[in-house]
Amino acid sequence: MDSADSRDFHYMASALRLARNGLYTTHPNPRVGCVLVRDDEVIGEGWHVRAGGDHAEIAALKSADNASGATAYVTLEPCSHHGKTPPCADALIEAGIRRVVAAMPDPNPLVAGRGLAKLREAGIEAVCGVLEEDARRLNPGFIQRMTTGRPFVRSKLAMSLDGRTALESGESRWITSREARQDVHRLRAQSSAILTGIGTVLADDPALTARIGDDVLQPVRIVLDTHLRMPPHMQLAKLPGRSLILTASGDRRRMADLQKAGFEIHRIVEKNGRIDLNVVMTFMADQQVNELLVEAGPVLNGALLAENLADEWIVYMAPCVLGDRGRGLFTLPGIRTMADKKLLKLADARQIGPDLRLTYKM
Amino acid sequence: MDSADSRDFHYMASALRLARNGLYTTHPNPRVGCVLVRDDEVIGEGWHVRAGGDHAEIAALKSADNASGATAYVTLEPCSHHGKTPPCADALIEAGIRRVVAAMPDPNPLVAGRGLAKLREAGIEAVCGVLEEDARRLNPGFIQRMTTGRPFVRSKLAMSLDGRTALESGESRWITSREARQDVHRLRAQSSAILTGIGTVLADDPALTARIGDDVLQPVRIVLDTHLRMPPHMQLAKLPGRSLILTASGDRRRMADLQKAGFEIHRIVEKNGRIDLNVVMTFMADQQVNELLVEAGPVLNGALLAENLADEWIVYMAPCVLGDRGRGLFTLPGIRTMADKKLLKLADARQIGPDLRLTYKM
Repeated sequence: MDSADSRDFHYMASALRLARNGLYTTHPNPRVGCVLVRDDEVIGEGWHVRAGGDHAEIAALKSADNASGATAYVTLEPCSHHGKTPPCADALIEAGIRRVVAAMPDPNPLVAGRGLAKLREAGIEAVCGVLEEDARRLNPGFIQRMTTGRPFVRSKLAMSLDGRTALESGESRWITSREARQDVHRLRAQSSAILTGIGTVLADDPALTARIGDDVLQPVRIVLDTHLRMPPHMQLAKLPGRSLILTASGDRRRMADLQKAGFEIHRIVEKNGRIDLNVVMTFMADQQVNELLVEAGPVLNGALLAENLADEWIVYMAPCVLGDRGRGLFTLPGIRTMADKKLLKLADARQIGPDLRLTYKM
Repeated sequence: MDSADSRDFHYMASALRLARNGLYTTHPNPRVGCVLVRDDEVIGEGWHVRAGGDHAEIAALKSADNASGATAYVTLEPCSHHGKTPPCADALIEAGIRRVVAAMPDPNPLVAGRGLAKLREAGIEAVCGVLEEDARRLNPGFIQRMTTGRPFVRSKLAMSLDGRTALESGESRWITSREARQDVHRLRAQSSAILTGIGTVLADDPALTARIGDDVLQPVRIVLDTHLRMPPHMQLAKLPGRSLILTASGDRRRMADLQKAGFEIHRIVEKNGRIDLNVVMTFMADQQVNELLVEAGPVLNGALLAENLADEWIVYMAPCVLGDRGRGLFTLPGIRTMADKKLLKLADARQIGPDLRLTYKM
């Protein structure tokens, strides 16, 4: 990071707050905010709302009468390439911006640093790295997709104090509180896609929509269904937006029926009799999924844990006991001795209504 | 509560801190602290250390040169009866104390209010109820035993994130961290007795001693052993202090062997093929057990939960996953629908090393 002073941190914090306005709408693009400051006065503000619309810098420039001589605070390095919109670096140069402060470089290794270089070539002072950690936390999925070719995978679990997600009968409504379930809708809203298993669909016929009232880009629903057991009449087929089935089956007739019902079908290779989860993750990235929310049963969660494919586990823990006949969180046949136990790291604990919400990282 | 001012709260807080010095040593007596104040200056301090020793008031009076005209702050109403020591009310009167501020009345309904009445008869101003809730939290067991004839029952559980206390094989060492296990030793040290089941003893041969370095009155070890399966050579028999077996068996020969090995044996009536837990609790109170710590397996914990016999559940939750073949916390055959689930209340959550310590109340 080059020279930055305490004002830089102050204005970057504002830009980060603006970026959060796009939490539920920007994907597959990142959340970005921008503040224009001249003579210690904010003269323009903007954020990226949705793909195809103005980038944060353009929105901020449009909100200012005249940005000549100003400093631009941007939570992500301005782009230098023509995408759906012209390069922001060019727009900042044309507007007469004198200095650009970015929180983090573009995570795409193919273009990282190019925007800043272009600005510097035009004689603009360009600083990078102010509140970088906060900026990274804002876009875990976009960054991970750009750097590793996989989405950021977050699995949500709802359980009793004694680690049960359902009764022996399968009954699971409701273990956690209304407040916790509302919090799940926010997790859904910030996700590009929701992944579940056919078992969960057959048991619950879920909608998997984000119901939070705000303007939300609804996540794509994706069901793992190795043997194409999905009945065509499920709720998922009828909802607006995309519902995908990933299968290893080649049954053309069932595929046609499900497509007619409204599903998209994609074939994924098998591995040990199940859809290969590594291939699923690459497929997700190809579908421009940044943050993937998993809402599934113990088999899929056990596989994700065993194969280290989840980045974050969010556990809603209700203050109730269901007893040891209830269903567990993770099917993990490979654990035979204490040395085999899977270790996580507690990252956050907070109360949501009467429940606890615990966040664990790999 | 009669007239109390902010100084009263200040000095009572000091008396409560002094009382905590007896956390590990006073049982079966309550923890009590006392501060003597004259002209806004502390002239004496004391606390009850152990049964048979000075009560807090006497210790405080001994620490002062001359307490004439002082105010005495006591965390519990001074006693008016002759027990192992003479009545504290008399000693306060003789010392010329002018005013007495108590945090709470004596919880024994047979003597409550008598100490304060005796002081008032002697012309001393007596106030009660300053920081009463804090004083009550200091002696949950003593208060419960005096008011209900049962100990305060606290059950400790150690589990993985997915609610498992052991692997399928029974292996359970160690799920939680060294820091969490050290915290358990503090729980043991503040308990009058530790209750476990014969299954846990046979599996682990535990010592159940409080190992915290400080001066500790070691808790009595109590094992529920319906059919007298205890082998005489277990570690519990050889430790200093009392190890009790509660049984429904009448096998005189096994009893004699176990007594010779060092156990005390007590017969308890059966109910549905198991020792009657309600009778166990009354027995505990007869044994002057204030706080009872349960360290047991899923059968005993399930029974305590089903019969509403535990006041507090302390759950150490490690950031690891053992998988759904592992052993659960509670055997609860009676839960068939979601309406049967047992509800608790989250009272506290904090981090202990890498683990979480969660406290639930009934």
